[in-house]
Amino acid sequence: MTIAALATLKTRLQRRKLDAILISQPHNRRFLSGFSPLDHGIEESSGVLLIPRKGRPLLLTDSRFELAARQEAPDFEVLLYRKGLLALLKELFTTLKIKKCGFEGHYTLHSSAEKLLKMATGLGVELLPVTNLVEKIRLCKDQVELAKIERAVLLNEEIFQEVYGQLRPGMTEIEVALQIENTMRMRGAERPSFETIVAAGPNGALPHAVPSSRTIKEGEPIVIDMGLILEGYCSDMTRTVARGTPAPKTREIIRLVRQAQLAGMAALQAGVTGKQVDAQARAVIKGAGYGDKFGHGLGHGVGLAVHEAPGLSPRYTKKLQAGMVVTVEPGIYIEGWGGVRLENMVVVEEGGCRLLNRDTTFLDL
Amino acid sequence: MTIAALATLKTRLQRRKLDAILISQPHNRRFLSGFSPLDHGIEESSGVLLIPRKGRPLLLTDSRFELAARQEAPDFEVLLYRKGLLALLKELFTTLKIKKCGFEGHYTLHSSAEKLLKMATGLGVELLPVTNLVEKIRLCKDQVELAKIERAVLLNEEIFQEVYGQLRPGMTEIEVALQIENTMRMRGAERPSFETIVAAGPNGALPHAVPSSRTIKEGEPIVIDMGLILEGYCSDMTRTVARGTPAPKTREIIRLVRQAQLAGMAALQAGVTGKQVDAQARAVIKGAGYGDKFGHGLGHGVGLAVHEAPGLSPRYTKKLQAGMVVTVEPGIYIEGWGGVRLENMVVVEEGGCRLLNRDTTFLDL
Repeated sequence: MTIAALATLKTRLQRRKLDAILISQPHNRRFLSGFSPLDHGIEESSGVLLIPRKGRPLLLTDSRFELAARQEAPDFEVLLYRKGLLALLKELFTTLKIKKCGFEGHYTLHSSAEKLLKMATGLGVELLPVTNLVEKIRLCKDQVELAKIERAVLLNEEIFQEVYGQLRPGMTEIEVALQIENTMRMRGAERPSFETIVAAGPNGALPHAVPSSRTIKEGEPIVIDMGLILEGYCSDMTRTVARGTPAPKTREIIRLVRQAQLAGMAALQAGVTGKQVDAQARAVIKGAGYGDKFGHGLGHGVGLAVHEAPGLSPRYTKKLQAGMVVTVEPGIYIEGWGGVRLENMVVVEEGGCRLLNRDTTFLDL
Repeated sequence: MTIAALATLKTRLQRRKLDAILISQPHNRRFLSGFSPLDHGIEESSGVLLIPRKGRPLLLTDSRFELAARQEAPDFEVLLYRKGLLALLKELFTTLKIKKCGFEGHYTLHSSAEKLLKMATGLGVELLPVTNLVEKIRLCKDQVELAKIERAVLLNEEIFQEVYGQLRPGMTEIEVALQIENTMRMRGAERPSFETIVAAGPNGALPHAVPSSRTIKEGEPIVIDMGLILEGYCSDMTRTVARGTPAPKTREIIRLVRQAQLAGMAALQAGVTGKQVDAQARAVIKGAGYGDKFGHGLGHGVGLAVHEAPGLSPRYTKKLQAGMVVTVEPGIYIEGWGGVRLENMVVVEEGGCRLLNRDTTFLDL
C-alpha cells in the first residue's frame, strides 16, 4: 500500500507544482509510511512526514519514537529533531532545495502554521495549505486494505458474541463495556476505535450515550455500539439486543430500523450519492411516523479513521465510488423510552454493495 | 471555580480590548464552563464557548451534547448550531455587537481559522489569535482544584496497591495494564489520563513503552506509570517494582533515582525556575555516571491536562509559583537492561513543596 500510495501522492504533487509536502495528520502519516504511534492530541505530535516529489521520503520524529519509526517505516529515512521540528525543517528546505511546499491546513494549528510560515518566508520558501489531499487517496480501499478491514469486522463480531453470551440482567452498562474493551485487547486489537457504547433502556435515547453504572433490566433494549482497531484499520458495529422477552414495542422498532437498514443497503452502489442512500433508509422511518426520532446521518466512511469520508447523509451530495467502505446505521431514539440502532459495514461496488458483517444477532426478529 | 475564572478572564479581555473570546481548547472549555464531553480529535469538536466581556457567556454545541451542556454548564446559555458553527457565530457577532474577538490560535486548525477569518472580515469583525490566555489562568490551582487533584492521586494509589497486590511473575504486561485500567473505571474514575505503561525488564528502557504480551519474570524491574481522571482532574504516578528478589543493580539504580527525586523535591519552591529544579535532580544522576541515561525532563505540570505548564526541564526558565502542581519523575533507561522511573506529584508552595502522594512502595529500599 505504502509504495502505491506514495507514487499517487507524488503525481498529485507534480500536478500542483509542489516540491514537497509535510504530512502531520496521524492517519495520513500511517497510511503513507506505516508509522503507527498516536499523537497525544494535536499539541503533542509523534512525528511528521516530509515527502519530496523526488528522492527518498523522510520521517521526522523525536527520540521516543525512533525505534518504532525505523521498524515500521522502512521506506522512509528517519531523522530526529533534537532542536525542535522547525529548526530541522529549516535545514531540510535548504539542503533538499525545496522552494514550494504544501502543508496540511486541516491538521496544523493556526499558531504552528504562523511559525512555519514565518520561517519559510525568511528562507524564500513558499508554503501552501493543502486540504484533504491524502484523505482523497484514502477514500477507495485496495484489496490489502479491504482484507484488513474485514478481519477487524470479523474479530469485532467474535468479541461481541463472546460478551453477548455472558450478558445478564443485573450487570451494569460499565461492566459490559469493560468486558468488551478487555476482550478486544486480550484478543489482539490495538485498541477500541472509539469509546464503547452500552446503553440500556432510557439511556439508549442518546445516540452517543456514555456507559453508566445503571443495571440492565430484563427485556429492555440494549444498544451496543463497539469498534476496534486491527492492523491500523477500524471496525464499527451496533447491535440492539435484549435479555429475556423484549416488549412488543421494542420488537416493532427493531424491525422498523432493520427495514430502513435494508433499504439503505439496497440503494447503495457506485454512482449514487450519499444523500440518495440516506433518503431511501430515512423514507422507511419517516413512513412509520418516526422521522423526527432519527436525528443523525445514515452512515459514514470507515478506514484508518473510524469516521471518515464519504458520508451517507442529506449533506453528502457527491457520488460514491467502488472500494469505499461505509457504515449503514439507521436509528430511532425516543426520550424516556430508549433507542434502537443497527449498524453494519459494507464495501461499495459497481451495481451494489458487499456486506462485511456476518453476525445477524437480533436483526431478523 | 467557574465563576472566579470567568471573572479573571473578563479582566484579561478588557486589558486586551477584546469584546469577546472564542474558546475551543477542551480543557479550557471545561475549566471555564464545567462542560465535560471530549472532542473526537480536534476535527470533531463537541462545542465552543463564546464569552463576551459583558453579558452571559454562551456554550455553542450540537444536539448530541445538548443535555450534557445544560446539566454541566448552568452558568452558560446553551445554543445549538443547526447549520454549522460558522453560521451561528456570524449571527452572534452581529446580535451581540462584537467587533473585536479573540480565538485560540493554539487550538484552532489553520483551515478553520481561514474560514473564520473570512467570515469575520466580511462582517467587519476583527478576529485575533490569542495564545494560552486561559492556560495561564489555569497554572495556579485554587483550593477546590487542589482537593480534586489530591482525591485523584489518592484513588490512583489505592488502585495501584490493589493491582500490585495481585501482580505475579508470569502475567503479561498487557494483563497488568488492563487490570489497572479496569479497576480505575470500576472505582469511578472518568478514564485513564493516558495509556497505562507496564514495562518489565528490557522493555522498561523505553520511557514511553507500550504494554506487550511479554510475561513478567521474577526479580526484574517493572515500570508502572499510571494516571486517572477524577472530576476532570488528572493523577500521574510511576513506581518501579519487582516481584521476588531484585538484583543488586536494580536496587542500586532505584536508590539512585530516588535520591534524584528527593533532590528535586528539596529544590522545589515558589520563586525558583523549572530549570533549577531539574538541574538539582539531574546532578545526582550525572554524578553517578548515568547522565546520558536520563533523556527527558524532570517533570511537568498536571491539572485538567495530564501534561501542562510549567515544566521542570532545562528549557523552562520561568519562575514557579505557589499553587502549581507538578510531577517529579527522574528516570534511568539502559538499553538491553531496562529502566527505572519514580514519579510523585507535588504542590509548589512558598519556601517548599507539598507532596500529594502517600504511597512509598519500593521508594525506600
